[in-house]
Amino acid sequence: MGRFSVTYWLGAADAAEARARALDLTVEQTVEIPRDIVPHGYVEDEILGRLEMLTPGTDARGGYLAEISYSDDDVGGDFVQLLNIVFGNSSIKTQTRVEGMTLSDAICDLCPGPKFGAPGLRERTGVPVGPILMSAIKPVGLSTAELADLAHQFALGGMNLIKDDHGLAGQPTSPHEERLKACVDAVAQANAKTGLASTYVPNITGPAVAIFDRAWMAREIGAGAVMLAPSLVGFDVARTLAADPDFDLPIISHPTFAGANVITPTTGFSHRFFFGLLQRLMGVDAAVYPNFGGRFGFSREECLSIAEGCSSDFGPLKPILPAPGGGMTLERIPEMQAAYGHDVVYLIGGALLRERADLVGACRRLVETVRQF
Amino acid sequence: MGRFSVTYWLGAADAAEARARALDLTVEQTVEIPRDIVPHGYVEDEILGRLEMLTPGTDARGGYLAEISYSDDDVGGDFVQLLNIVFGNSSIKTQTRVEGMTLSDAICDLCPGPKFGAPGLRERTGVPVGPILMSAIKPVGLSTAELADLAHQFALGGMNLIKDDHGLAGQPTSPHEERLKACVDAVAQANAKTGLASTYVPNITGPAVAIFDRAWMAREIGAGAVMLAPSLVGFDVARTLAADPDFDLPIISHPTFAGANVITPTTGFSHRFFFGLLQRLMGVDAAVYPNFGGRFGFSREECLSIAEGCSSDFGPLKPILPAPGGGMTLERIPEMQAAYGHDVVYLIGGALLRERADLVGACRRLVETVRQF
Repeated sequence: MGRFSVTYWLGAADAAEARARALDLTVEQTVEIPRDIVPHGYVEDEILGRLEMLTPGTDARGGYLAEISYSDDDVGGDFVQLLNIVFGNSSIKTQTRVEGMTLSDAICDLCPGPKFGAPGLRERTGVPVGPILMSAIKPVGLSTAELADLAHQFALGGMNLIKDDHGLAGQPTSPHEERLKACVDAVAQANAKTGLASTYVPNITGPAVAIFDRAWMAREIGAGAVMLAPSLVGFDVARTLAADPDFDLPIISHPTFAGANVITPTTGFSHRFFFGLLQRLMGVDAAVYPNFGGRFGFSREECLSIAEGCSSDFGPLKPILPAPGGGMTLERIPEMQAAYGHDVVYLIGGALLRERADLVGACRRLVETVRQF
Repeated sequence: MGRFSVTYWLGAADAAEARARALDLTVEQTVEIPRDIVPHGYVEDEILGRLEMLTPGTDARGGYLAEISYSDDDVGGDFVQLLNIVFGNSSIKTQTRVEGMTLSDAICDLCPGPKFGAPGLRERTGVPVGPILMSAIKPVGLSTAELADLAHQFALGGMNLIKDDHGLAGQPTSPHEERLKACVDAVAQANAKTGLASTYVPNITGPAVAIFDRAWMAREIGAGAVMLAPSLVGFDVARTLAADPDFDLPIISHPTFAGANVITPTTGFSHRFFFGLLQRLMGVDAAVYPNFGGRFGFSREECLSIAEGCSSDFGPLKPILPAPGGGMTLERIPEMQAAYGHDVVYLIGGALLRERADLVGACRRLVETVRQF
């Protein structure tokens, strides 16, 4: 059978300790029984992880990089089991971080990846080059009419993607289906005036028994994409939708509840892996994450590594768009452009809502500023 | 409307900084727009979080404890939205950790909690007092017949709960339904000989479109409980099953992929909250986590805080059983008993499998050792 591999950063004082830790990982992530009682034959030869390479670390953390290969047989065609192998129990260990991954044919069958990716999102939004602009309707507590009016004005102002706030669910002030219909209509009416292709993106994050219904309802009622939070609803939802040939909407992921996965440089996942490669495995087309210099603590370097993970060579999986947000303002556009270049979605919420008295004008100024670079 | 509250630990140099950080949380977790443009009236009065109390920290971390209340209206009857409010975006912040929570009537309606809890698990397994003993069939790569034989011998030896390894999914060597049937039969045959009530616990963690089917199939085919990994499949699956009056199997949770949530003392969730209170909110009846002194890094104190979170007063939600595992051995039983007392599930896998030549005898010695205290 085919094998795929995961590269881990491991804290270790020397190569011998690193090797011992890496060999522990080959056991922990697969057979999870003491090494000396692993059954000979198929289990030992195929299922047990294999340490393929061990090299010294290349950054300030020191340590070592261990590449471990795993069998497609262990995945068994199940995406959450793949994640279990990549970092299940070892997520509980300190001094252990997932840095990268290579694919196998079986993984590519299981994870066909983003259906749209960067090129498809550009086609859908009618933005052939340069940053795509996204905003969010909020706050929770506004009525459906008020939220739909915001969506309408964002669209009139030329925002390309208009998403629900990630906190908008099925609150009594704006039930999910009512908001979906109202915002689809509001954006369509604006598009009829502007001639643009602004797209409403409902948040389908919700009860386990409702999320797929919400995805298909979004399609039926005419939304242009959907948003979900994988760390809340599970990692297989996006993949299932992306792998379904009939589900023809882009998927945007939100980082809520995911923070702990990247919060220290020596545990969890690298930013590049979690907000880049993993999103592509899930079939996500654009990944929201907190921008540097905003109210969250990601560094510029970490953010650029995410952008790299969104577009780097990763088997047949399409490149996707990084969607930095969180405290972005008009004034920061030149800095953002210098950092991210053209292949990016800017998520700008609060800074526009601050100009509620002339929201359309504020959006137009933003569009103009971004398009002049 | 009713309100519930969350207590956060916040790193801060002084009370003024702590207060500013706490007020930021009241915004970030609810309206997520700058404080000065929060709409007056309902949104500001009801939806915006309220800082109820701010007190100095009580342990070596220093810092402050902030109690913030939120509106049931913001939850809107959606459990993942509740988690979003508790720690969604703020999970991305450093120096911020969820420590505790109080309930509201609406949360208790949404989360009726464990259907069995500690008392129900005892009744099911026929262990009225003292630790319940659990083992796991593994490794991945064995055939269904080999795994079922392990289940049979564990049951003959008197293990109370016999669970799938968390890596057993739908691998070609042992497809899910085939294993479920074989293990249910194998354990029933052993019970017929021993007169005990050993229970097979299939892992229902799997594809998003299959997990509920697997839960109901487990019930139909005669499994005595189910196991799932919330951090992989999403946090609403267990709650949905536990809240369904017709689903009458206990639920055991597995910590795979969850490690980052507790990995530093100043981020994520307290051990007590994540492996105790949160499990009860989800309706989990026993929570597996890595024991102290094993191959993972949880301290004795952290593990005991989990046990406390499993049984502390938490509205109407039943107490559940902590299920420490990972590198447990027969020799450590006295130490475990001293730490955990009687209300615990011991998960012992590898140490028993090491005695494969006389697995039944090894289980019986374990049972005897545990029961003598």
